[in-house]
Amino acid sequence: MDHLNVTKTADTSDSTSVSDRPVSDRSVSDRPWEELERLAEAGDPQQLGEYVSGLSSCDQALALSRLDERLRASVLSGLDADDAAELIGHLPESQAARAIALLTPDDAAAIVHELPSDEQADVLGDLSTDQAEAILEALPVDEADAARQLSSYDDNVAGGMMVTEMLRFTPEMTVADVIAELNAGAEIYSDFDVRYAYVCETDGKLVGVLPMQNLLFVKRAAKLADLMIQNPLAVSDTTELDELIDFFESHAFVGVPVVDETGLLKGVLHREAVSYEETRAAESDYLKSQGIVGGEELRSMPLWLRARRRLSWLSINILLNIGAAGVIAYFQDTLQSVIALAVFLPIISDMSGCSGNQAVAVSMRELSLGLVRPSEMMRVWWKEVSVGMINGAVLGLLVALLAVVFDGNYYLGLVVGLALLINTIVAVSIGGVVPLLMKRFGFDPAVASGPLLTTVTDMCGFFLVLGLATMLLSKLV
Amino acid sequence: MDHLNVTKTADTSDSTSVSDRPVSDRSVSDRPWEELERLAEAGDPQQLGEYVSGLSSCDQALALSRLDERLRASVLSGLDADDAAELIGHLPESQAARAIALLTPDDAAAIVHELPSDEQADVLGDLSTDQAEAILEALPVDEADAARQLSSYDDNVAGGMMVTEMLRFTPEMTVADVIAELNAGAEIYSDFDVRYAYVCETDGKLVGVLPMQNLLFVKRAAKLADLMIQNPLAVSDTTELDELIDFFESHAFVGVPVVDETGLLKGVLHREAVSYEETRAAESDYLKSQGIVGGEELRSMPLWLRARRRLSWLSINILLNIGAAGVIAYFQDTLQSVIALAVFLPIISDMSGCSGNQAVAVSMRELSLGLVRPSEMMRVWWKEVSVGMINGAVLGLLVALLAVVFDGNYYLGLVVGLALLINTIVAVSIGGVVPLLMKRFGFDPAVASGPLLTTVTDMCGFFLVLGLATMLLSKLV
Repeated sequence: MDHLNVTKTADTSDSTSVSDRPVSDRSVSDRPWEELERLAEAGDPQQLGEYVSGLSSCDQALALSRLDERLRASVLSGLDADDAAELIGHLPESQAARAIALLTPDDAAAIVHELPSDEQADVLGDLSTDQAEAILEALPVDEADAARQLSSYDDNVAGGMMVTEMLRFTPEMTVADVIAELNAGAEIYSDFDVRYAYVCETDGKLVGVLPMQNLLFVKRAAKLADLMIQNPLAVSDTTELDELIDFFESHAFVGVPVVDETGLLKGVLHREAVSYEETRAAESDYLKSQGIVGGEELRSMPLWLRARRRLSWLSINILLNIGAAGVIAYFQDTLQSVIALAVFLPIISDMSGCSGNQAVAVSMRELSLGLVRPSEMMRVWWKEVSVGMINGAVLGLLVALLAVVFDGNYYLGLVVGLALLINTIVAVSIGGVVPLLMKRFGFDPAVASGPLLTTVTDMCGFFLVLGLATMLLSKLV
Repeated sequence: MDHLNVTKTADTSDSTSVSDRPVSDRSVSDRPWEELERLAEAGDPQQLGEYVSGLSSCDQALALSRLDERLRASVLSGLDADDAAELIGHLPESQAARAIALLTPDDAAAIVHELPSDEQADVLGDLSTDQAEAILEALPVDEADAARQLSSYDDNVAGGMMVTEMLRFTPEMTVADVIAELNAGAEIYSDFDVRYAYVCETDGKLVGVLPMQNLLFVKRAAKLADLMIQNPLAVSDTTELDELIDFFESHAFVGVPVVDETGLLKGVLHREAVSYEETRAAESDYLKSQGIVGGEELRSMPLWLRARRRLSWLSINILLNIGAAGVIAYFQDTLQSVIALAVFLPIISDMSGCSGNQAVAVSMRELSLGLVRPSEMMRVWWKEVSVGMINGAVLGLLVALLAVVFDGNYYLGLVVGLALLINTIVAVSIGGVVPLLMKRFGFDPAVASGPLLTTVTDMCGFFLVLGLATMLLSKLV
């Protein structure tokens, strides 16, 4: 996190704009994974290292993700540990853990050693317990203990997002002590965020926060106890993502200290780590709502794994669909007598499904903005019913007109128009309220709203069209 | 962005953990908007201010968003400008701009004056040109010019995300000059990010970056020219979001200077601003994929606006649906002869739609991770066809069995099973490839993949089932 790491470029004109040199232009070949594969198989670590470091980070990720798993591991073990650690940081998490798992524990430990503490915890957390333990045993004891502790936290609580790299001093230290310490440990501290230091008693209890730039303006003999902000705000290590998002929305901090239940300082949580988890959560909601469950899918994963995961979700869906089909089967005779109904069934089920999805999206959005509480189901329901009545009436009228034009029977128009009106209201009611219910009872609103909604609106739409038609059968045939 | 703003709390135990005091417990009432409405109507600015500042930021946003537009404006004009500016920052953007628009230009300008430069630009950009000009004229001339320039940028380029609040010095200045300047301007600089200073020639050309903490370790007579990082990386003000995301992925910077085409320093772009826009883009993709287009919908918006916006998208969809229904109409006679087909039509269209959506989600994800290039359509297509053949075969067999059990006719099983197999392959092909095509030709992949996909797979599914059935009609009746 430091401009100090800037690669200084010799040519000033070149260094003033990234947009002048699009990343893809810098790649050595158009298909960098082929060259990477060749070099990995040739097994010359130096050439490999030079080639990889010559690629943009996008091409690194792209090329590495395209390799066969074993080749990917051999590229990593061929690189310097710090280069390999940087590469790991650019890979999707699922691939990063797999790649580490295929290395020898010593090679893996050398790379893990170079990762920042929060990434260590993420990678180790994605491995099996045995694999993680083998790597931890090859690490220095202190570091292994710290990593074990960090990876024991869930990914979505403060402890799982914090880093342990932080400046930590005692209240008795003077400004001169701090400067001497920073000079002595320059190498260790180069990867730290040095904007704030945290002041702890010798027992580890957090007592103050010190903005480092303030040290510019004070005498070198001043004690930290007199300079620090006392009783700083902190979050508990078990605070969850939702609350952390609220916290950083209410407070314009770049980071906040994380303490355990006894007030001991455990790490620092940066605003950025929270935004990162927030983005991940939004992406994961999107994937789940589209039926990619059981973890992210990449097309470089084994075919059988991809097919099986998608199929597990499709199988549940087909069961729900059989229910909807059952409604049609029940009304087969009506349908056979008035075959024109079959033309309108898919319009009615699809349009209601679309209206329902709109209501789901608005509920998800309002929940994530904190503009609705999960308990306010009546409010949401009424707001949706109002829109549903207007849109249902407009769409119903349109479909009724279509039916009359198509078939010449006004009663057919009445049946399909009325069915679409009612089913639109049903769909937006379910779509609006179900995410709140899910949230209230601790389920993930994204995963269940979609398919559940579609099938229920299908079933209800079929029932309405065919039920109404059965009632009016004498007018329709 | 500063721990210095921490509200110090008297009670240490209370201040060490936000999780011990959930935000909702601190609210004065369970329905804070009612109290807010009462106070806004009573018109006592002091009471109003006290009540608002006593609410958590979540409750502030919730309560304010529930008010009628005019009352919302009167709450804002009743508050101190800096409190009002903070509130504006917590509101959804659409409401923030509307609320500002309803104030007098002088009241609005007082609030806009307190916003950071990037938020100024966002709010002014959301107003009509006349409204924005009226407010700009009530601002100090310098600030108005800067705001005009910032709001001329698109939201999703570097210039639209940067802030102009930054430390800016010349290379001839000494460390002592800098410290004197910081002390003299302490009030102005309190809202700045002071981790880095930017060094410019007198003509405004960026020549260096200076990590402020380095000043701790050097003599006060040293010149910035000798301390700064020369030829620093910078981005052009027109660089787009995708490239900025790549930039911050490749470089562990907290911020990067933004320059125009002549190398003049225009502002600083923080990593956080890029993450924020990235999250917004993901959220907007989600909304669009669910049929909420034309901007975010909140249930506090006027009913007619909500109904009209949703309806405009539904109307396009109904046209597409009529196409699919046309296929059924064309095959009416076949359907009437083999009415059992009607039971299986929705299963086949819905299941293919689900498979297609999974493929869309994986393509969107791989595009956003940079793991696939928009030109690699053949690769994606083949990867999808492989999964489609497996899943289509499994689902097709399942549906075929169902049909045989339901109807006792093996040919019916053959027709629906084969149709589902083929249609699954069609659906995953379209679902996988369309987002790449959209991206390649500069369309938004999120908005068009969903409905287009569903309707094409519906149409194709109906055609396959009914077409195959027509061919085998003699075996089916």
